[in-house]
Amino acid sequence: MTIHEIQAYLKEFFDSVELVGSGEGEISAPAKIESAGAGEVSFIANEKYLRFLDQTRGGVADFAEGRSFLKVADPYTAFVFVLKKFSLPRTIAAPGIAPTAVIGEGAVMGEGVTVGQYAVVGDRCRIGAGSIIGPHAVIMHDVEIGEGCTIFPHVVCYDGTRIGRRVVIHAGSVIGADGFGFAPQADGSYVKIPQMGIVEIGDDAEIGANATIDRATMGSTVIGKGVKVDNLVQVAHNCRIGEHTVIAAQAGISGSVIMGRQCMIGGQAGFAGHLELADRTSVAAQAGVSKSFLEPGTALRGYPAQPMRDQLRHEAMLRHLGSMKDRLDELEQRLLKQPHGA
Amino acid sequence: MTIHEIQAYLKEFFDSVELVGSGEGEISAPAKIESAGAGEVSFIANEKYLRFLDQTRGGVADFAEGRSFLKVADPYTAFVFVLKKFSLPRTIAAPGIAPTAVIGEGAVMGEGVTVGQYAVVGDRCRIGAGSIIGPHAVIMHDVEIGEGCTIFPHVVCYDGTRIGRRVVIHAGSVIGADGFGFAPQADGSYVKIPQMGIVEIGDDAEIGANATIDRATMGSTVIGKGVKVDNLVQVAHNCRIGEHTVIAAQAGISGSVIMGRQCMIGGQAGFAGHLELADRTSVAAQAGVSKSFLEPGTALRGYPAQPMRDQLRHEAMLRHLGSMKDRLDELEQRLLKQPHGA
Amino acid sequence: MTIHEIQAYLKEFFDSVELVGSGEGEISAPAKIESAGAGEVSFIANEKYLRFLDQTRGGVADFAEGRSFLKVADPYTAFVFVLKKFSLPRTIAAPGIAPTAVIGEGAVMGEGVTVGQYAVVGDRCRIGAGSIIGPHAVIMHDVEIGEGCTIFPHVVCYDGTRIGRRVVIHAGSVIGADGFGFAPQADGSYVKIPQMGIVEIGDDAEIGANATIDRATMGSTVIGKGVKVDNLVQVAHNCRIGEHTVIAAQAGISGSVIMGRQCMIGGQAGFAGHLELADRTSVAAQAGVSKSFLEPGTALRGYPAQPMRDQLRHEAMLRHLGSMKDRLDELEQRLLKQPHGA
Repeated sequence: MTIHEIQAYLKEFFDSVELVGSGEGEISAPAKIESAGAGEVSFIANEKYLRFLDQTRGGVADFAEGRSFLKVADPYTAFVFVLKKFSLPRTIAAPGIAPTAVIGEGAVMGEGVTVGQYAVVGDRCRIGAGSIIGPHAVIMHDVEIGEGCTIFPHVVCYDGTRIGRRVVIHAGSVIGADGFGFAPQADGSYVKIPQMGIVEIGDDAEIGANATIDRATMGSTVIGKGVKVDNLVQVAHNCRIGEHTVIAAQAGISGSVIMGRQCMIGGQAGFAGHLELADRTSVAAQAGVSKSFLEPGTALRGYPAQPMRDQLRHEAMLRHLGSMKDRLDELEQRLLKQPHGA
Repeated sequence: MTIHEIQAYLKEFFDSVELVGSGEGEISAPAKIESAGAGEVSFIANEKYLRFLDQTRGGVADFAEGRSFLKVADPYTAFVFVLKKFSLPRTIAAPGIAPTAVIGEGAVMGEGVTVGQYAVVGDRCRIGAGSIIGPHAVIMHDVEIGEGCTIFPHVVCYDGTRIGRRVVIHAGSVIGADGFGFAPQADGSYVKIPQMGIVEIGDDAEIGANATIDRATMGSTVIGKGVKVDNLVQVAHNCRIGEHTVIAAQAGISGSVIMGRQCMIGGQAGFAGHLELADRTSVAAQAGVSKSFLEPGTALRGYPAQPMRDQLRHEAMLRHLGSMKDRLDELEQRLLKQPHGA
Repeated sequence: MTIHEIQAYLKEFFDSVELVGSGEGEISAPAKIESAGAGEVSFIANEKYLRFLDQTRGGVADFAEGRSFLKVADPYTAFVFVLKKFSLPRTIAAPGIAPTAVIGEGAVMGEGVTVGQYAVVGDRCRIGAGSIIGPHAVIMHDVEIGEGCTIFPHVVCYDGTRIGRRVVIHAGSVIGADGFGFAPQADGSYVKIPQMGIVEIGDDAEIGANATIDRATMGSTVIGKGVKVDNLVQVAHNCRIGEHTVIAAQAGISGSVIMGRQCMIGGQAGFAGHLELADRTSVAAQAGVSKSFLEPGTALRGYPAQPMRDQLRHEAMLRHLGSMKDRLDELEQRLLKQPHGA
């Protein structure tokens, strides 16, 4: 691909893509700025990476040495599109329904659906056109999967799960297992509360590997449109996660949490049950959120989590504990030198 | 189902089930009180939900409007039994041994065992009557599974695992993988310590999705009767978890921890190795337990975890750090105004 | 096996293995010192376990009662070798390629490779001599696995993964899923950043159950030689983990972290992205590491993590908060008794 071709391609997404340099030369691959070589394209979105330019021999760099630049308003996103252009489609399974796949009674498969080796699709499932069910995925009965989805190997969707369009679920994730609900009995044992609800996942959501999203007790656990869930995340029964919210790895959301749109949840953060977060709430990694925060755009941090400004002041105070103790020692010293009662 | 039938059914479990209202009308489904409509049954166990009564059009509500109530000592548990009554049995696999299931040599299958598509059951395994092994489950050699168990798809039980009766294991959980034991060598490398023990799971236990319970180095890792383990929980080698203990999602129990009966462990809580907790210990979410607590019924919280009263006092003190600093400033001000040495 | 035979065997690893006692009698199994009986061998590496000697009826104990001892410089490692001697090789799958295994086009299988029932090996994969691919493992296209590896059931290796020799990966782990990378857009949605890199795992590494190691955006996520990764650990895209580093269960390593050799990472510890840890750094369980630590051998603890000495001093100070408040009260009392302005 030539630099001119990349320029033309980026003009699909950006109003202005200015070429500086000759634009000649063939580009064979994208690369990190630290390691880009001849025939490779990289990007700089942050001044601190400018220092790598001198050592870069790549195609889109110092034009004095025959390198060229493309100037765009958002180089980071532009590079994402360049990556997309160069990325080869991953082959998860050969096209069509593998001969070893088991398709249940009454299942309806859209046009061009791929089902990999040994995948099991239950009775009455509906799989949308162009979707890919990876080898060894188990789709239990009455599951609906929209168009253009990618279900990686070893995913399990329990019965009744409803998945939108263009959803990606990585290997090993379990969607729709029973919520953790048990009624304590007088003798110390528990009676299981039937988990009769389902999980609904909106369009364009992506779920990482080995994550778990539990079905509702009644009704639905809802993962909104465009939500991104990282590896090993737990979403408990009856949660509702707002559109375009992002949840980093190993975060744990207890039951019936209602989370707004465009929230950003850090890794290993935890949430008590039955609380509510407003839109655009951000939660720092490892924070423990113990109550609702209803002001949109609040940044939370710490355990128990509080707004960033309060928490940073608190952490600063903690760092000054030593000097507080010193000042207390000093005050006592001075007072002891004074006659009692003055 | 009529309200009279529900009343009769609940009398199997409760001494007194009083009907208020006509008891007429057909009930088709249970529902949450917030959303219950005509022909639906819900419950109120907490006064704060009484406000939903007015907006409820369900079957068991304001009898002035043709709705009926059933009064029981424990409405929450009563509703759990109602849910059970309405819940349809989930079909994990067609009855019998699927033609694609692989059954090892010398395996003994009890009456009415179901083994799903592509499940693999190892040599010399014993599967109790009425148990269901889901599609794609892998049961390695010499595993014993009692009567009436439900093993969901993609569960892996390593060799030698012993599982009691009526145990439920959700999708993706791994029972009996090697404990994390390596002997450090002088050159910085490690020699693997063979993990020769097994995992034993007691009757009526339930294990969530994608949890991991490691086999013992020697002897057994023991999950007691009636223990409930949530998704993504780690139980390390040689742990012993007492009967009816409940462990919430993503908690991590290090090696050789001995936990009493009826403990309640919060989500993401962590435990150092080789410690012991008395019966009925409760541990708050995200707490870090670093030592043994041998007094039954202790509530723990914080990092390092300490008894709730101490920890809450500590947290209150932390919240007052700011005012302590202010008081210190004030004292210094006053002393500076005084002549030295009085 | 006789005690003399164990002595001879241990001499392969230790310069001196001294026998105290007759050395007679047959040893049938290793056991924990607390429970060792006749015909069993145990070990003592720590004085506090000497008390168990009296109650032990095992083969290698008080020779006055016909028991014998073997004295070695490192009894712990010696016992590990004894365990190895007694451990039976686990049978994960019958030797050879199972008839139901699916082997892709152009895949190259080394001598003596075992592939279990229903395993799927992709096109152009190379599996080294003597390696075992467990039942239901899914090895996607273009994966290289070295000699002598053990891949347990339900492992998924995404396309392009490169695994060294003698690597063990436990059930349910997902190697090479997409890194969690999304470019935020002006409308609040995200564009997925193609994850074009791979995962490389060095010789003799061991990965626990249900762990996730993500592929790099570009280049490789690298797990060094001899690294041991416990269950449910998350290693994000572009991380580089140094040789012989040990990572305990549920730890989470954010993207682009560079970790030195022989580090020890506690359970549930978390790491912010793009930081660097020197060789032999140790990190306490549940710690939150928010910045780089470049001094080799540093022990870290707390949130945010700081060197152990600082953190322990800080924690001691926190414990004295109560007495600081008391002293402050006392000082105020005394000052209030004084005439203002002296």
